[in-house]
Amino acid sequence: MLQGHQSWAFSKRPVIQSSATVVGPDEAKGPLVHDFDLVHGDMLLEQDSWEKAERKLMEEAAQLAMDKAGLTKEQIQFYVGGDLMNQIISNTFAARTLTIPYLGIFGACSTSMEGLAIGSLIMSTGSAKHVLVGTCSHNCTTEKQFRYPTEYGSQKPPTAQYTVTGAGAAVLSASGDGPVVTGATIGRVVDMGIKDPFNMGAAMAPAAVDTIQAHFRDFHREPGYYDLIVTGDLARVGYDIACEMLEKHQVPMHQTNYYDCGLMIYDLENQPVMAGGSGCGCSAAVTYGHIMKKLRKGDLKRVLVVATGALLSPLSFQQGESIPCIAHAVAIESRG
Amino acid sequence: MLQGHQSWAFSKRPVIQSSATVVGPDEAKGPLVHDFDLVHGDMLLEQDSWEKAERKLMEEAAQLAMDKAGLTKEQIQFYVGGDLMNQIISNTFAARTLTIPYLGIFGACSTSMEGLAIGSLIMSTGSAKHVLVGTCSHNCTTEKQFRYPTEYGSQKPPTAQYTVTGAGAAVLSASGDGPVVTGATIGRVVDMGIKDPFNMGAAMAPAAVDTIQAHFRDFHREPGYYDLIVTGDLARVGYDIACEMLEKHQVPMHQTNYYDCGLMIYDLENQPVMAGGSGCGCSAAVTYGHIMKKLRKGDLKRVLVVATGALLSPLSFQQGESIPCIAHAVAIESRG
Repeated sequence: MLQGHQSWAFSKRPVIQSSATVVGPDEAKGPLVHDFDLVHGDMLLEQDSWEKAERKLMEEAAQLAMDKAGLTKEQIQFYVGGDLMNQIISNTFAARTLTIPYLGIFGACSTSMEGLAIGSLIMSTGSAKHVLVGTCSHNCTTEKQFRYPTEYGSQKPPTAQYTVTGAGAAVLSASGDGPVVTGATIGRVVDMGIKDPFNMGAAMAPAAVDTIQAHFRDFHREPGYYDLIVTGDLARVGYDIACEMLEKHQVPMHQTNYYDCGLMIYDLENQPVMAGGSGCGCSAAVTYGHIMKKLRKGDLKRVLVVATGALLSPLSFQQGESIPCIAHAVAIESRG
Repeated sequence: MLQGHQSWAFSKRPVIQSSATVVGPDEAKGPLVHDFDLVHGDMLLEQDSWEKAERKLMEEAAQLAMDKAGLTKEQIQFYVGGDLMNQIISNTFAARTLTIPYLGIFGACSTSMEGLAIGSLIMSTGSAKHVLVGTCSHNCTTEKQFRYPTEYGSQKPPTAQYTVTGAGAAVLSASGDGPVVTGATIGRVVDMGIKDPFNMGAAMAPAAVDTIQAHFRDFHREPGYYDLIVTGDLARVGYDIACEMLEKHQVPMHQTNYYDCGLMIYDLENQPVMAGGSGCGCSAAVTYGHIMKKLRKGDLKRVLVVATGALLSPLSFQQGESIPCIAHAVAIESRG
């Protein structure tokens, strides 16, 4: 299984037996609405706090993924999850409900692919038949925690991003039908000195480029190997910067389709989402909803998902620190 | 490598080539002072915030561990770390300094063994020559974040625990001298309904017992297999409860020495630490300092470290939630 310096090539390739996505009302107004399994019309999901609503999103996505795979929670050996909340409470409380042995992770919005990478690593050792991975975010919980009290309705610059209300989960299995996870590249923390938390796309773009370059170096591949490369949630500002940087570094991205989950999930012309989507739920909903559907249909054969994360905290920002960023890449391929 | 339902038995056993610990002034007054590599006389470590001091603890422990192994950071392929801070900033910023591909994790005080388990899993696949794992905590940062402003000096009940100021790190290598990691058991989230954040030992004890029982079931072992079993940081209250529960469940703990890191790091009679130590740094400093020293000397042959974590957040507490807890167990054995 030895691959390059910061990558894993899985010899036992885990099958993504099923995946499921649950989103809120804003995501339902976007172009991917038909790719989600469950759409909620309100932000509270009949809970008495946004935090409990976020947890419910995660629990529903996890349960739907298991239902689709025809598995009970007792048949799943490990759950790998995390989210943006302090002490990742959405996933921890979901793990309490699920009662599956649990590995909590944190990579901000890169958590989606960090979880899929670690879940696949567990599967690749043959030490589990089924592993569940998942992540989630909620617009109101993140606004409340990272920015201003939500009720303020404070204005934002056009470089800001809109946190996705959504959850995605996937069941990895040793056998069965579905696309397989073939490899993963674990990112380094990259920090180019950007301090503006309303411009996370610009902060995260260099991390995405660093990981994309590492992936091609480690796997001796070129972008043309993939039908589609998507970054996590760079949105409009970060995507443009990433394109420029990749060109400058002479990465032949013209060989493939390169897009960004933050640009895919909303209708940027008609929804008030500023530069685009963000949040753990963004790349999770796009990958486990939209992309998985296309892989299953045969419309896509090989996809590289490069989930990006801005690893700041409100406190690190207040103490004058710049924004450390990271990106983890996972290669998913259909077997058709 | 297939073991039981929630455990991994490593066929390629990673060597703990080196480990290092850095602590603050209170830990230096405890009985394990001679087991630490670096002792700081003040809580600020010449930084301008406690958070930066905590980060420095982590960076120093990581650097010392690499120095002891005779390795540079460029030779380490992955860093697995986490801590108690919101968005695990201590480890993220340390990872920025280290520039090693980074997997951020969160398991509250169980993070020490979650990191060692995941690091060992990576090593067991043969996909890395060297992996660094580490965690840290700081008394003042956790007090500030989880409880009251530190300057209040608010009184606490005797069931409360005192957060360790310390960091521990270890270098795992595919070959070399040192004890080996032979297996790990990943815990489930256990929540018995305790809501008092000043009695985390009682909240965490059932999670420790659940993981200990799972470990023996999965590995078909009895406690006598180990010279020493230590729980993470149950301290006085939680340790007594764990002993009672283990007896009730007829686990023959009399076969071994069972103790708790929260009882070992301080002089409980003469230091104002209430029920004992806690924090990510507690089990890390005891394991990577004291226990590793005894394993290397041959005073111990087989040790099971069961790090416990209380996965609450101030917000989940304020919203009336009880405390979800977890414990991860790692088996470390000398080869002498």
